[in-house]
Amino acid sequence: MTWLRSAFQDELDGVTATLVDLSKLVSDAISKATHALLNADIKEAEAVIAADDRVDEIQHELDSRIIDIIARQQPVASDLRALVTALRMSADLERMGDMAHHVAKISRLRHPAHAVPEELRGTVEEMGKVARLISDKVGTIINSKDIDRALEVEHDDDEMDKLHRKLFTTLLDPNWTHGIESAIDITLIGRYYERYADHAVSVSRRVYFQVTGKYNSK
Amino acid sequence: MTWLRSAFQDELDGVTATLVDLSKLVSDAISKATHALLNADIKEAEAVIAADDRVDEIQHELDSRIIDIIARQQPVASDLRALVTALRMSADLERMGDMAHHVAKISRLRHPAHAVPEELRGTVEEMGKVARLISDKVGTIINSKDIDRALEVEHDDDEMDKLHRKLFTTLLDPNWTHGIESAIDITLIGRYYERYADHAVSVSRRVYFQVTGKYNSK
Repeated sequence: MTWLRSAFQDELDGVTATLVDLSKLVSDAISKATHALLNADIKEAEAVIAADDRVDEIQHELDSRIIDIIARQQPVASDLRALVTALRMSADLERMGDMAHHVAKISRLRHPAHAVPEELRGTVEEMGKVARLISDKVGTIINSKDIDRALEVEHDDDEMDKLHRKLFTTLLDPNWTHGIESAIDITLIGRYYERYADHAVSVSRRVYFQVTGKYNSK
Repeated sequence: MTWLRSAFQDELDGVTATLVDLSKLVSDAISKATHALLNADIKEAEAVIAADDRVDEIQHELDSRIIDIIARQQPVASDLRALVTALRMSADLERMGDMAHHVAKISRLRHPAHAVPEELRGTVEEMGKVARLISDKVGTIINSKDIDRALEVEHDDDEMDKLHRKLFTTLLDPNWTHGIESAIDITLIGRYYERYADHAVSVSRRVYFQVTGKYNSK
């Protein structure tokens, strides 16, 4: 039984390691997507779009592996919960990759023009930084199961919401001169960063639940 | 063993029934949210917002039940896959409920004004109809596991995409006189209906996969 438990633990550790890998890939993707967006860098945008296939592949492979572990090991109680939670975290991380992909696609669509007007560059840059910080942190938390850091992610998300509101304030300023098309782009870009952060919060809450058995809804 | 199998089958049928219930609730929610939006009906908007808690509750209860079935019955192969697929379908359906909720919130935010300008009423009304049709169909498919109907959902989603593009064409028309705030609302509303339909497609693809063992990506 000790041996079995240890084989299972190894498999669970492997799942955790892949989740951390996924968090690194999407962190990298949102960073590069932000850079591509702010610099109208078509090559970087294309690279982010292409790299998302890899995230999807890893997620599919991971999900099959998790289901296979459940079938073979027939875990119960907290072990089963850990695996189901991993399935959900992988879905969140995959979706974060999609959001980076969407940001990159707007950059590509507007190339060679810049999708983000000058007066919003600072805000979008900040959103990109917060997004990266939050997914880097989530990667650490998946690994360490550090509850205090999991709670910190809620504050990072507040910061993202603040930046999101700032986008809208600028859009709605009577001095906005960039017209409707740009307003549509910015609305969607804002939504993508906000959703990226929401999914990161979701991952951190799942870790919190896994460790404490309680839901943290702030 | 026959008895065990049958007890398991009953539990699986119960899961399917709850998924169908969820599909009905979200279908109803998107219908009412559309009606509230087009008629600036604050009471109906509030009702949709309040009803989303019920969807979330049912989803949580269902997920716990599914995990409990896996722990007790220790299913393998196709039975395990059916349960994991059910977990994913419940997440899609819960998210469809969120989208209806978001539409209702825009309606409430703009009340007593109308969030949708006259020239877009027709398109938004159509989006609401397609959304309802698609989730009604998905409810039937979850129950019947009818593969041909699951494939039909892809076409319904094409219809939604067409309507979504039509929204943008109207927004970008030089004759658009409703300003930036309205453009933001319409961009978000369009995104919510599009995502609603995407999640419905996702459910239909999961049914397809469950029955055929193959992925249908169109």
